[in-house]
Amino acid sequence: MAVYTDITDEELDALLADYDVGAAVTFKGIAEGVENSNFLLETERGRYILTLYERRVKAGELPYFLDLLTWLADHGFPSARPVADRQGRVLKTVRDKPAAMVEFLTGLSVRRPTVAHCRQAGEGLARLHLAGAGYPARRVNDLGQAAWAPLFAGLGQAAEDLKPGLAATVRADLDHLATAWPRDLPSGTIHADFFPDNVFFRDGRFAAAIDFYFACDDAYAYDLAVALNAWCFESDGSFNLTAGRAMIGGYETHRPLTPAERAALPVLAHGAAMRFFLTRLNDWGSTPAGALVRPKDPLEYERKLAVHRAGLALLADA
Amino acid sequence: MAVYTDITDEELDALLADYDVGAAVTFKGIAEGVENSNFLLETERGRYILTLYERRVKAGELPYFLDLLTWLADHGFPSARPVADRQGRVLKTVRDKPAAMVEFLTGLSVRRPTVAHCRQAGEGLARLHLAGAGYPARRVNDLGQAAWAPLFAGLGQAAEDLKPGLAATVRADLDHLATAWPRDLPSGTIHADFFPDNVFFRDGRFAAAIDFYFACDDAYAYDLAVALNAWCFESDGSFNLTAGRAMIGGYETHRPLTPAERAALPVLAHGAAMRFFLTRLNDWGSTPAGALVRPKDPLEYERKLAVHRAGLALLADA
Repeated sequence: MAVYTDITDEELDALLADYDVGAAVTFKGIAEGVENSNFLLETERGRYILTLYERRVKAGELPYFLDLLTWLADHGFPSARPVADRQGRVLKTVRDKPAAMVEFLTGLSVRRPTVAHCRQAGEGLARLHLAGAGYPARRVNDLGQAAWAPLFAGLGQAAEDLKPGLAATVRADLDHLATAWPRDLPSGTIHADFFPDNVFFRDGRFAAAIDFYFACDDAYAYDLAVALNAWCFESDGSFNLTAGRAMIGGYETHRPLTPAERAALPVLAHGAAMRFFLTRLNDWGSTPAGALVRPKDPLEYERKLAVHRAGLALLADA
Repeated sequence: MAVYTDITDEELDALLADYDVGAAVTFKGIAEGVENSNFLLETERGRYILTLYERRVKAGELPYFLDLLTWLADHGFPSARPVADRQGRVLKTVRDKPAAMVEFLTGLSVRRPTVAHCRQAGEGLARLHLAGAGYPARRVNDLGQAAWAPLFAGLGQAAEDLKPGLAATVRADLDHLATAWPRDLPSGTIHADFFPDNVFFRDGRFAAAIDFYFACDDAYAYDLAVALNAWCFESDGSFNLTAGRAMIGGYETHRPLTPAERAALPVLAHGAAMRFFLTRLNDWGSTPAGALVRPKDPLEYERKLAVHRAGLALLADA
């Protein structure tokens, strides 16, 4: 949640000269997106978000993400459409960093989703899967199941520091997940980070999704499992079954799950908890003390791991 | 440049229920204001900045600042008018912190002011002085000349750490300023932090000033001296006399300086450099390593001090 790169008025003017959007009227750094610098830009023609891509996003993958946003907007999904310059380019360079401008979306994210929000979010996620179905580009999920054991290899001590005995528990989880992981579920382009702060509502209804920079190819039901973890846990660490059923029900109003997908939800949710536990554990140890970003607490996902380890059998018949 | 406090959707809804502004449409933390948390809030009725006051601003002084903003807007100066709730209150509480909503101002601040910007900024500052002239509330400048020696008392070692020998030089400056400081210049409500990031332009013309949380009573010409330091130095550390003359000329189109004010500008600019050097030196040492705010380099103002020590005689006949 930080602006890393300042842009001068000269740099902004030089950028806007390439576009047909008129002159800038308002330009403010906004606290959105942990990995990139984001600016709210209002010009004579409209409102936009200008993003400068910092550290983690690989420049070579940006066309995949930006073309996906265009594809989704073209196929009726409410995501932020990239704005092309006069030469048709959406990927630009500002201060030697990749940059892109997308249309501004109104809407509010919710911090404490209600059951109704979970149902709406489920609907939105299914619409995203349907709209993205024909997107021709492919991107491997580099944080998918195959990546977890290698990622944990260097983090055993960090897990022990977090909670003595945790390293062995996580290794057992990883073994279980490797064995039980479903391989033949319906797959396609997924969001892979469908958290409440990446979803906008208007009047209580799903309005838009943002931040597609983890999008990739994987099982649709895995995307739903990521969302179940992100939306349906209470602050006391318990899973809210009513919220979970509402999310799945909302999802199924647009895309009914197959029996295999439904049966796989518990192990998918266990794996989805592992994915966020591992990256948070990794960030926890490696974020320098002076960084502008506060790393997220890996213990939140350690607790979710424990819940899934105990088994969420009810999810399968939600 | 940071959002310190998150606001949940429930907290935002509860706040907006007190106002006649309709429901929220967009709500984003913005990277503006080092001391407070600022949010861009768009409702069905308009656009606003919601500020939560953090650390440094004393809650008891907020009515002075907010009433000044209202006064200035009422007297034709383009500053952000505070929005009153249905009971006429502008000062509210959100998550146990003082909070206020002001109207959103369009305009762009400039990072590298041109001579033309300096002239416009000078015009804007004089308009601010004239508009604020009848404001009835008073606030002592707690970072004025009388405060500098006490402030430096604990910072001798920090100055030496910055540059060996600097402590003695600063003490000599402080003695000189105490002796030479003018006491009878025209005074009133000043901005006291009229830096480029606090001034908005539209189409190259002065459009608005923001961030009045250092406003106080002091000499008008001291406010101009603060601005000369902030706007008219080149990045190589030299003072741009053309820019300085333009700023003074712009100022005088609305409020001509008295001979005494003009004669005092060099010592006022020396003192204004001291004020920002001291607070930056203080912040430099006392900002915790993990803080979200990067302290500003005190050396920038140490160099400006050196320029003024050498004498800017020409300023007096600008």
